[in-house]
Amino acid sequence: MTSAPAAPPRVIETCLYAQDLDAVEGFYGGALGLEMIQSVADRHRFFRADGGMVFLFNPLTTPIPAPPEAKIHVPPHGAHGPGHVCFSSEGPGIEGWEARLAEHGVEIEARVTWPNGARSIYVRDPAGNSVEFAEPKIWGI
Amino acid sequence: MTSAPAAPPRVIETCLYAQDLDAVEGFYGGALGLEMIQSVADRHRFFRADGGMVFLFNPLTTPIPAPPEAKIHVPPHGAHGPGHVCFSSEGPGIEGWEARLAEHGVEIEARVTWPNGARSIYVRDPAGNSVEFAEPKIWGI
Repeated sequence: MTSAPAAPPRVIETCLYAQDLDAVEGFYGGALGLEMIQSVADRHRFFRADGGMVFLFNPLTTPIPAPPEAKIHVPPHGAHGPGHVCFSSEGPGIEGWEARLAEHGVEIEARVTWPNGARSIYVRDPAGNSVEFAEPKIWGI
Repeated sequence: MTSAPAAPPRVIETCLYAQDLDAVEGFYGGALGLEMIQSVADRHRFFRADGGMVFLFNPLTTPIPAPPEAKIHVPPHGAHGPGHVCFSSEGPGIEGWEARLAEHGVEIEARVTWPNGARSIYVRDPAGNSVEFAEPKIWGI
């Protein structure tokens, strides 16, 4: 028997990758309206979502280790190719998000109704990541 | 002026990629103790975390579109190379997670204390993704 967590842990950092960080800054900060809390040149943009963070990293720079004199050494990472994230549509709802995305010129790539009745819409961020908005009942949340 | 969401949206699906899904199933389901709620052969393993889902996708199969007769068509995605996720350490705490990970033979790659005093530990999942456990005060959560 191993020590069991009393409850499953909560994700507090969700990461996606983009080589053009200025472009994704406009998408996540503008079209999605997330507050940007940290911007480091060619390395990353950090945004605050509800209850956790959404990080956009440039995979060309995140694999480079910090210089030896740096105070903090974070293990390297960096992925290439389109990732995926899903946001809850609660609040504005699917229609509210469709309206807001249209105002920002973001095209809906797909609309899905799942077997349990939950609806999703899918768009692409400027880096090609697949960004979904779903009714949270999709996972019984 | 565009229609503004009343509050920032919440992430309900955080995705990572792994070609060996059985190996990551043991890590997320075993060492991390997450409940697996869906398993589709060579395509994906879905796990339930607190307040949202953690999805492991095989990037060799997710880019393949569903056959034309499929009822649901989800936009393709699929990333290669190490991604990153961070879980809150609340509950067991950093020491509790260190103990549990050690019992499962998972080596700590790095320990970091951030300028605001929050502590993080980093491990690798079997696919090489960087998995962090952090005290949630790291982001004022």
